[in-house]
Amino acid sequence: MPSPLITFTSDFGVSDWFVGVVHGVIHGICPETRVVDLTHGIPAGHVERAAFVLEASTRDFPVGTVHLAVVDPGVGTVRRPLAVRARGQWFVGPDNGVLEWGLSDPAAEAHAITESRYFRSPVSRTFHARDVFAPVAARLACGEAIAAFGPRVADPVRLSRAVPVRGDGRLVGRVMFVDHFGNALTNLTEQDLSDAFPMVPESGLQVLVAGRLIRGLARAYGDAKVGTLLGILGSSGRLEIAQVGGNASARLGLGEGDEVAVGVSEGEGG
Amino acid sequence: MPSPLITFTSDFGVSDWFVGVVHGVIHGICPETRVVDLTHGIPAGHVERAAFVLEASTRDFPVGTVHLAVVDPGVGTVRRPLAVRARGQWFVGPDNGVLEWGLSDPAAEAHAITESRYFRSPVSRTFHARDVFAPVAARLACGEAIAAFGPRVADPVRLSRAVPVRGDGRLVGRVMFVDHFGNALTNLTEQDLSDAFPMVPESGLQVLVAGRLIRGLARAYGDAKVGTLLGILGSSGRLEIAQVGGNASARLGLGEGDEVAVGVSEGEGG
Amino acid sequence: MPSPLITFTSDFGVSDWFVGVVHGVIHGICPETRVVDLTHGIPAGHVERAAFVLEASTRDFPVGTVHLAVVDPGVGTVRRPLAVRARGQWFVGPDNGVLEWGLSDPAAEAHAITESRYFRSPVSRTFHARDVFAPVAARLACGEAIAAFGPRVADPVRLSRAVPVRGDGRLVGRVMFVDHFGNALTNLTEQDLSDAFPMVPESGLQVLVAGRLIRGLARAYGDAKVGTLLGILGSSGRLEIAQVGGNASARLGLGEGDEVAVGVSEGEGG
Repeated sequence: MPSPLITFTSDFGVSDWFVGVVHGVIHGICPETRVVDLTHGIPAGHVERAAFVLEASTRDFPVGTVHLAVVDPGVGTVRRPLAVRARGQWFVGPDNGVLEWGLSDPAAEAHAITESRYFRSPVSRTFHARDVFAPVAARLACGEAIAAFGPRVADPVRLSRAVPVRGDGRLVGRVMFVDHFGNALTNLTEQDLSDAFPMVPESGLQVLVAGRLIRGLARAYGDAKVGTLLGILGSSGRLEIAQVGGNASARLGLGEGDEVAVGVSEGEGG
Repeated sequence: MPSPLITFTSDFGVSDWFVGVVHGVIHGICPETRVVDLTHGIPAGHVERAAFVLEASTRDFPVGTVHLAVVDPGVGTVRRPLAVRARGQWFVGPDNGVLEWGLSDPAAEAHAITESRYFRSPVSRTFHARDVFAPVAARLACGEAIAAFGPRVADPVRLSRAVPVRGDGRLVGRVMFVDHFGNALTNLTEQDLSDAFPMVPESGLQVLVAGRLIRGLARAYGDAKVGTLLGILGSSGRLEIAQVGGNASARLGLGEGDEVAVGVSEGEGG
Repeated sequence: MPSPLITFTSDFGVSDWFVGVVHGVIHGICPETRVVDLTHGIPAGHVERAAFVLEASTRDFPVGTVHLAVVDPGVGTVRRPLAVRARGQWFVGPDNGVLEWGLSDPAAEAHAITESRYFRSPVSRTFHARDVFAPVAARLACGEAIAAFGPRVADPVRLSRAVPVRGDGRLVGRVMFVDHFGNALTNLTEQDLSDAFPMVPESGLQVLVAGRLIRGLARAYGDAKVGTLLGILGSSGRLEIAQVGGNASARLGLGEGDEVAVGVSEGEGG
C-alpha cells in the first residue's frame, strides 16, 4: 500500500514558519505521509483563487489524496471547519468556498469538523491550519473515517462561478487565472467549445480578447514565431491566451474576470 | 518508530540550488529522514531573525526533531559549528547566536562540532551547510550520540534579547517580527501579560502602538469590521498587532524594534 | 536499499500548481521516491541557466539520483524528450541543451523518449513535465532500464559554453551565474587556475573585474572587513566574486557574460 499523500495550498507565503509547522504537525500524527505543497502564493484571503487552484490540479493526483486548503480570513470566528469526500479524494479546509471543487461533485459528502479530541490543544485563535485542519488531514491520510470528525452538513458555503454565455454565434467566457508565465486561463473548457461549435475544427475557431482577434487554436506554445498571440487548450483542459516566448497577460493587460469570446472564423461552417 | 524529522532554516533563498543540495546530502546519509523547510527567506546574515523563527516554531514539532539553522556570515572563519541538545530536540548550526532558542534552555547541552570524519571531504570554504552542518544533522537524525561530534562547550555565543519593561502601570515590549500578512509579533507573551495585569480580563487591556490606542484584545482576526486594528494573542503565544483584512505593519509603518505598550483601559481595575 | 531520489529543476515558479502536480504524478508511479526541488526560479525559457544549475549541483547528490529538468519553450513541438545516463546518475528533460551537464560526460548514453505507453494519457500540448518527463523520471527511479523508453540517439542538442581564454599572462573567464547573495560565479575552476598558474599560491593571484583589482584569493567570505571585495574559490569549485557582508554583483553591476581576468600579482613569480 503506497504511503498517503496530502497536498497543501494556502496564502501563508514561504517567508515565515507557518507552512513548515503544518508539515511538522502532519508528520507527528501520520509519519508516513508525503506532503506536497501546491502553492502558498495565494494572495491573502483570496478564496476564489485557491478554489481555482484545486479545480485545475487535483485530478492529477492519485485516488485517496487528501487536499488541505487553508485560505481562512474568518479563522477563529463562527465559520465551520469542513472535511469533504468527493471525486475519490478528500478535501479539508474552512467552510468559505475554498473547497468548491470538492463540493461541486454531486456525490460530495461534507462533514463539519466538530470533534475537538482530534485538535491540538489548546486551539489558537489565529492558526487553525496547525491546530484543526492539519490534524484532521493527517488522520484522514492515516485511514480515519470521515464521519469520525463530525456530523454531515447539507449547507456548505458554495462559490458562484462565472458560467460561459452563448449567443450571437459566440461563446463568451472569462479569465480565471493568470499563471507564472503570463498565460491567461479561462473558464472555457474543451467540452464547452465542442458543445458550442460542434464539427468545427480548432483551426476554424477564432478568439476575441482585449480587442485582438486570434484565428485558429494553436497546437503548442512554440507553434508560431516569437511574439505571436495564441489561443490554446492548456494542460487543465481550458482555453488559454498565451504569447510565444512572452507574457500575454502583461502585453494585453489581462486579469481575472476579463472577457474572452470564441466564434467561428469567417468562411468556416458549423 | 517514526521516520526522523529535520527542519531547515536559512538565508539561502530558493532561486539557487543551495537548499536542494542540503536535502540531497541528508538523504545520502540518512535516507529515511523527512526534511521540512521552515523558511529560506531570512534576510542575508540576519541571525536574530532566524533565531526568532526557531523560537516561534520549534515547540510545534515532535520530540526528537533536529533543527538545522544556517545563517552564517562567518562561514569558513574561526566561529565554531555547534550541536545542541535542548527542549527534547536537537539544534545544529554556527555558534553565532542562531541557536539561541536551544541555548536558552537551562538544561541545554552544547557541543562544538570538531570530529571532521563526519564532514564531507574536502570541506569547502563557503558552504558549511552542505559540508559540515547537514552531515551532522543527518547523523543525529539517524541516532548518532551528540557527544560523538566533539567536546561539550560552556561558552556558546548568546543573543541578548529585548526584555519587556514594566513601570507606570504599563508593560512595554518590542516588535520582534513582521509576518507575511503584515502582523507585527511582539516579545510580549501571554504569561507576561497575566503577570503584569493579574485579574484583568483581555477586554480590560489596551495597547498603544505607533500613536494608536487599541482597546481590548480581540478573539479572532475577523472579529471586527475590515480595516480595524487589533491586538491579539497569536499562535506562538505572543501579542500581535493586526488589521482585519489588511496589513497592520504597512499601515502603521511598524518594523522590528518598535515599541508596543500595554496598560489597563480607563475605568478598569487591576 | 535507500529510497530513490529525484531532483526537479524548472522555470515554473511556485505561485501556481505546476510543481506540486509533478510531485503528485511521481508519487503515483513510484511512491517511495523523495523529490527534492533544486529550484523553480529559472527565468522563463532560460535553458542555459538551468543547465548551469545542474552542472553546479548534481555532483553533490548520491549515485543513482534522477535529475528532472524542465525548461521547455518548445513543449509540444518536434523537440525530442530525452533520458540520459551519465556520471553515475540520470538526467531527464527536453532535447534543447538543458541536460548539457549529463551530455558533456564522454560516456553519456542518451535515449530519445518515444515509448508512449509510459506517458500519461492523453498527453497535453503544454505540460510535458507532467505527462511525459515526470512519468519517465519516476520509472527510472523505480528501476526501469533506460533503454525501455526509446532508442539511443547520437545527436542530442549541445550547448556551447564559454571557455576560459589564456594569453598575455592572464586567464580570462566569464560570469556564469549571480546567486541569491549577489556572488558572481565564474566559469574559472580551481583546475583552470592551477593549470594556468602552476606553483603560484592563491595569495599571489590577482583578479580584475569591472575595473577593480582584487589582490589574492580569500579563504572565507568573512576574511576581511565588511564591504571588501573578494575573489574566492566557492563551493562548486569555481572562482567567485563576493563582497564581505554585501552584494558584489549589485555593487559592481555584474551580470552573466561579464569578463573576469586572473593574473599574477606584481612581484610574484610563476
